[in-house]
Amino acid sequence: MRKIAAAQIADIARGAAILGTGGGGDPYIGRLLAERAIAAGGPVTLVEIDEVPADAVVVPVAMMGAPTVMVEKLPTGTEIAAVLAALEGVLGRRPTHIACIEAGGVNSTIPFAAAAVTGLPLVDADGMGRAFPELQMVLPTLAGISTTPLALADEKGNTAVLHTVDNHWAERLARSATVEMGCSATTAQYVLRGDQLAGALVAGTLTRAERLGAVVARARAAHDDPVAAAMAELGGRLLLTGKVTDVSRRTTAGFARGTAALTDGGGLEFQNEHLVATVDGKIVASVPDLICVLEADSGEPITTEALRYGLRVAVIGVPCDPRWRTPEGLALVGPGYFGYDHEYQPVESM
Amino acid sequence: MRKIAAAQIADIARGAAILGTGGGGDPYIGRLLAERAIAAGGPVTLVEIDEVPADAVVVPVAMMGAPTVMVEKLPTGTEIAAVLAALEGVLGRRPTHIACIEAGGVNSTIPFAAAAVTGLPLVDADGMGRAFPELQMVLPTLAGISTTPLALADEKGNTAVLHTVDNHWAERLARSATVEMGCSATTAQYVLRGDQLAGALVAGTLTRAERLGAVVARARAAHDDPVAAAMAELGGRLLLTGKVTDVSRRTTAGFARGTAALTDGGGLEFQNEHLVATVDGKIVASVPDLICVLEADSGEPITTEALRYGLRVAVIGVPCDPRWRTPEGLALVGPGYFGYDHEYQPVESM
Repeated sequence: MRKIAAAQIADIARGAAILGTGGGGDPYIGRLLAERAIAAGGPVTLVEIDEVPADAVVVPVAMMGAPTVMVEKLPTGTEIAAVLAALEGVLGRRPTHIACIEAGGVNSTIPFAAAAVTGLPLVDADGMGRAFPELQMVLPTLAGISTTPLALADEKGNTAVLHTVDNHWAERLARSATVEMGCSATTAQYVLRGDQLAGALVAGTLTRAERLGAVVARARAAHDDPVAAAMAELGGRLLLTGKVTDVSRRTTAGFARGTAALTDGGGLEFQNEHLVATVDGKIVASVPDLICVLEADSGEPITTEALRYGLRVAVIGVPCDPRWRTPEGLALVGPGYFGYDHEYQPVESM
Repeated sequence: MRKIAAAQIADIARGAAILGTGGGGDPYIGRLLAERAIAAGGPVTLVEIDEVPADAVVVPVAMMGAPTVMVEKLPTGTEIAAVLAALEGVLGRRPTHIACIEAGGVNSTIPFAAAAVTGLPLVDADGMGRAFPELQMVLPTLAGISTTPLALADEKGNTAVLHTVDNHWAERLARSATVEMGCSATTAQYVLRGDQLAGALVAGTLTRAERLGAVVARARAAHDDPVAAAMAELGGRLLLTGKVTDVSRRTTAGFARGTAALTDGGGLEFQNEHLVATVDGKIVASVPDLICVLEADSGEPITTEALRYGLRVAVIGVPCDPRWRTPEGLALVGPGYFGYDHEYQPVESM
């Protein structure tokens, strides 16, 4: 257990956005949100999974929608209180802990804002070890945990609570509500008991994000190579370097989809997150492994919505959580689900 | 207070479908649903508005979606129990009465099924005196009553509960959920206190539907003119007669929209319900007045999804509830809302 003050949020947002593989929200916005909430509500208590009582009621809080829209439609904080109240209304139990469902610039800092607003402790973990575009793409799904009851809230004051027959239906219904709410919404879902956390979450993700963010900042301040520092901290390998020569994107059905081309034959394909990296058309890394795009000089994470012509980038491949490499994991988030016909190969063996 | 047995449902479904002005669901399907539920649960107790205690918790139950889809996707009855359970979960009070929100072949019989399933009494009234395509288009909206909490359930087992800032937002969010659920869903909304019924509902609609349905059946059995009998009972006037020469329809965004042409220059335009009747392009009746299309020989109601080439029809115009003719009523359901630029004129003065 330790306290997280506003001053630590910048590193967490930066590191989480690197782990977010282009998705999970803009780290600058995520940082502002959490810093403001902590300034008002005080430091957040971050607890390890093994510090959480077995009967705890743990509620992950996140933003859902297209990151391209989220950057223009900042959540105000009232949505967090509204979404938790809506969920509590159907749970009939008071949440005891907040959790993080996804590593990302906003989705790792929104839980800090939720913890600051409610005064509840935050669990140092996340539900993926990275970011994924769809609700059901989390380790809790593999652990047999239901997305629902799921609550959604928008900035206008509308809320929705869903109970669905499976996690894919939760994604479908929550996505259409999110689109109607203006392509982004605040959500609370995957309510977990304390004794389910170890099996259903990736332990230590928020601390990992903080360390990663700090390593990059220190390397930059010391005029070292921030990309090399990030790569060493991540245990990843360099996939591509170069200048972005073309980006094509479209925001459809609540997702930001597109492709980018780099000099020297590098390519990226994304749906909120980077899914595939290629060199001269040959795949060098693929979902579910992490494809982290950094600004080459600063080591700052580049989200898919911030990719633009002329940026000099370095692309790092990082092994995903081993649970994603099982047959069940690959069925949920492997290349086939996203419409690709290539076999998944671990990034370290390519 | 009186009991309604399965044998009375056919007249109610027929009469309600006439009042439904082409919408509110197919009367044959509505009849089957209610007859089956009454066979299992016993006769339904129908109560007058002034028999309902002031503190009663009155819950209207209906189907939402495109009638073109509803005829192919019969609700099974489990949705009714699911939708009421979902609503009760957030209400924190047990419903004491079922109500009918819309006159229509399904939406006036679904409440009988709900009353039979729950054993609760049904209020002899409805929320429009006709059918309209969108959720907010009900007299409770004019009376300042919120659509939400609103519950939706589909045949797969998914439920959603909405709280929205106004009734238009309830329509938007419930419509997108309905589309995602397969273009039709069972819904419970507009929870009313007993002392709100007189101001927010049209009294006696279910009895009116039964009488209307019976008059048509009797005239047909006696080889009298069923259309003339319906017209006399409705207090309406004959707008068009002729054979359908063309129907154009499309099911978009959860609605069935289209136009129909009759011999002798007659025309109809609809969005779930008939909105405008014309002769040689000149408007002879317009929403919110009732435009009731009957099969010319039998007097049976023709829903918009059943309109087809070659049918011989008689079209009757009937004055709507006077509350629809106020400036507030016309703002909610008048020609302008549906994209027309004509001024509303009462059908009896055209």
